[in-house]
Amino acid sequence: MKKKIIYLDYGATTPIDKEVLAAMLPYLKQEYGNPSSLHSLGQSAMAAVDKARMSVALFLDCSPDEILFTSGATEANVTAIHGALKQMPSGKPHVITSAIEHESVLEACRQLELQQKADVTYLGVNGQGKVQIEDVEKALRPETVLVSLQYANSEIGTVQNIREIGFLLRKQGVLFHTDAVQAANFLDCRVSELNVDFLSMSSHKIYGPKGAGVLYHKMHIPLAPLLVGGGQEGGLRSGTENVASIVGMGKAVDQLSFPHLNLINIKIRHMRDRLIKGILKKVEGASLKGSLEGRLPNNAHFTFEGVEGRDIVMLLDQKGIAASTGSACSERSQEPSHVLLALGIEPSKALSSVRFSLGKYTKEEDITKVLKVLPPAIDQLRRRAVH
Amino acid sequence: MKKKIIYLDYGATTPIDKEVLAAMLPYLKQEYGNPSSLHSLGQSAMAAVDKARMSVALFLDCSPDEILFTSGATEANVTAIHGALKQMPSGKPHVITSAIEHESVLEACRQLELQQKADVTYLGVNGQGKVQIEDVEKALRPETVLVSLQYANSEIGTVQNIREIGFLLRKQGVLFHTDAVQAANFLDCRVSELNVDFLSMSSHKIYGPKGAGVLYHKMHIPLAPLLVGGGQEGGLRSGTENVASIVGMGKAVDQLSFPHLNLINIKIRHMRDRLIKGILKKVEGASLKGSLEGRLPNNAHFTFEGVEGRDIVMLLDQKGIAASTGSACSERSQEPSHVLLALGIEPSKALSSVRFSLGKYTKEEDITKVLKVLPPAIDQLRRRAVH
Repeated sequence: MKKKIIYLDYGATTPIDKEVLAAMLPYLKQEYGNPSSLHSLGQSAMAAVDKARMSVALFLDCSPDEILFTSGATEANVTAIHGALKQMPSGKPHVITSAIEHESVLEACRQLELQQKADVTYLGVNGQGKVQIEDVEKALRPETVLVSLQYANSEIGTVQNIREIGFLLRKQGVLFHTDAVQAANFLDCRVSELNVDFLSMSSHKIYGPKGAGVLYHKMHIPLAPLLVGGGQEGGLRSGTENVASIVGMGKAVDQLSFPHLNLINIKIRHMRDRLIKGILKKVEGASLKGSLEGRLPNNAHFTFEGVEGRDIVMLLDQKGIAASTGSACSERSQEPSHVLLALGIEPSKALSSVRFSLGKYTKEEDITKVLKVLPPAIDQLRRRAVH
Repeated sequence: MKKKIIYLDYGATTPIDKEVLAAMLPYLKQEYGNPSSLHSLGQSAMAAVDKARMSVALFLDCSPDEILFTSGATEANVTAIHGALKQMPSGKPHVITSAIEHESVLEACRQLELQQKADVTYLGVNGQGKVQIEDVEKALRPETVLVSLQYANSEIGTVQNIREIGFLLRKQGVLFHTDAVQAANFLDCRVSELNVDFLSMSSHKIYGPKGAGVLYHKMHIPLAPLLVGGGQEGGLRSGTENVASIVGMGKAVDQLSFPHLNLINIKIRHMRDRLIKGILKKVEGASLKGSLEGRLPNNAHFTFEGVEGRDIVMLLDQKGIAASTGSACSERSQEPSHVLLALGIEPSKALSSVRFSLGKYTKEEDITKVLKVLPPAIDQLRRRAVH
């Protein structure tokens, strides 16, 4: 029998909720139609996609026509940035983002620079990972056309003032994209409140399946497709719809709107706070990164002096605890995290990071177990380092 | 209870094979790790993706490093064409394709033209939908860098001489991409035999789930990614892997290699031939499109004089038979099929087309039912047209 894993890596991916899987299964079995087909099997698949679209539109408080289903958040981010820029009049536009964005946003921006399609400003952040609204304002130029800032950081959980920045940018007539992947479980994502023109979401971070994401795109704002062909998704994303994953994402989003979510999130925050306090008390040389207040309720991110984060993650894994050195996407590279470097942390110290990210299946006893296992594990690694 | 559907639209999408779904389910349940995560749950997901990669490599007779998982064939096609062109030295390269390609190939080529990144030649085909190798040869220019031709057509099932064209192009040092989406169920797809540098496949056309595709890309041939970010798939396709769909595609490909497939395909061809003969005999004004010999064994494509294909498909649907007017991707547009126009068929006649595409769950009695239902249905529509 497989040993039970204490999963504290919800920031990397979440298990699929049972009700989500139940909603998906018909579309992996008898409801196998291609949504573009005219016959009833196709129509039934299309109706399921449209129902999911409506769920997401309700969650984001927008029109279903403004919802674009993609294969995931990376595709949503790249589509927003490259797709919006492609529609700009000629000349060299200017884009603003921050140094701590997800790699898909940073890399999409770097490509714009390499191909000389745009100038890009990468805003710095303060010691807690916060973008200052004054810095956004100062960076604006007459040719600034797009700002892309994440709602919450995947590594350190810092939440940005998307609403205020959005208000500023709307006044200036500058398009605003936010990557809300990590935020969707916890924060208000109504685009009408956030003043954003584009917003990205991922299914597999909200207890939905992998293989689906959403790009909200405000009506009447020109956007070029990344994937061209059959003209699905109103011509903005060709390719046969991944019906089962889209249905799953719709169901996952439905559950984000449930009133009991607030209670779950209060419970998660309480356990997370116990984890933070316990680690700071029990482990010498442990230092919390990011903000204590303005962070996602499920995120606890530390550096541990004199120990490699990778070694900690591997040792915890042996003891049945799944954690991460930062974001899963960058975990295989042995480079220090670009997020931690942007906070001003030295490269050597940045390699000693561990992220615990909690979720709706986390239990108090899981936290108790981590607080019991982690201190001697760190000790063990430090002794090993000495010899 | 839902009425039983006679499904003759396997060219649009296939039901998921039961063994494929069984292979996927663990990755929709307990095996939910992110393949990029260092811990065992992540490693286990990565191992599953790599196992699927090996299955596809065995099927295509190539190295697993040459297999790129995408969200589907549209992404594979667009990545091959745009990704290969991005890596070309400056100057204006030349691309050759045919007039009857899938929309994703055609549209990717049109974008190259619009953005003045390449000149494109769209080869015509003969009356049966066949590209002539002499035409390819004549179209070659010193600046030709890429040829993209489908292995088999999705509407009329015509099979191209990929191997011979590949042999020609390899001698000339021109890159060759083939869209093998419709061919994979029936034809030899070993890239070593086909002399191709890129090959696209779709999971949901081979009894796998939607949401996965493959791009084979020959080692050492430069390819730029379409989706950038976390660097998954060797940096060629960023974004968290859709583990369950990839596992499903691997299993589906495994089953393509089973010896009994040949028997199934002989059975399919036999039923398809009975369908073609029956329709030609029983329905006046029915005309088979494409080639009788050089076509996929599951494809039967007709025009029916004086009747709209859409009306036939809708009426058949009411009688429990799922067919198509052509390819699902273009079915919603009311335009005549670009494939039929390329065959030299008049636009008005092109709108009277119906495709029946058979699959491994098709039964003799399904064909009997179609041969019983279709002739009076056509009569009924013709009478309606007269009044």
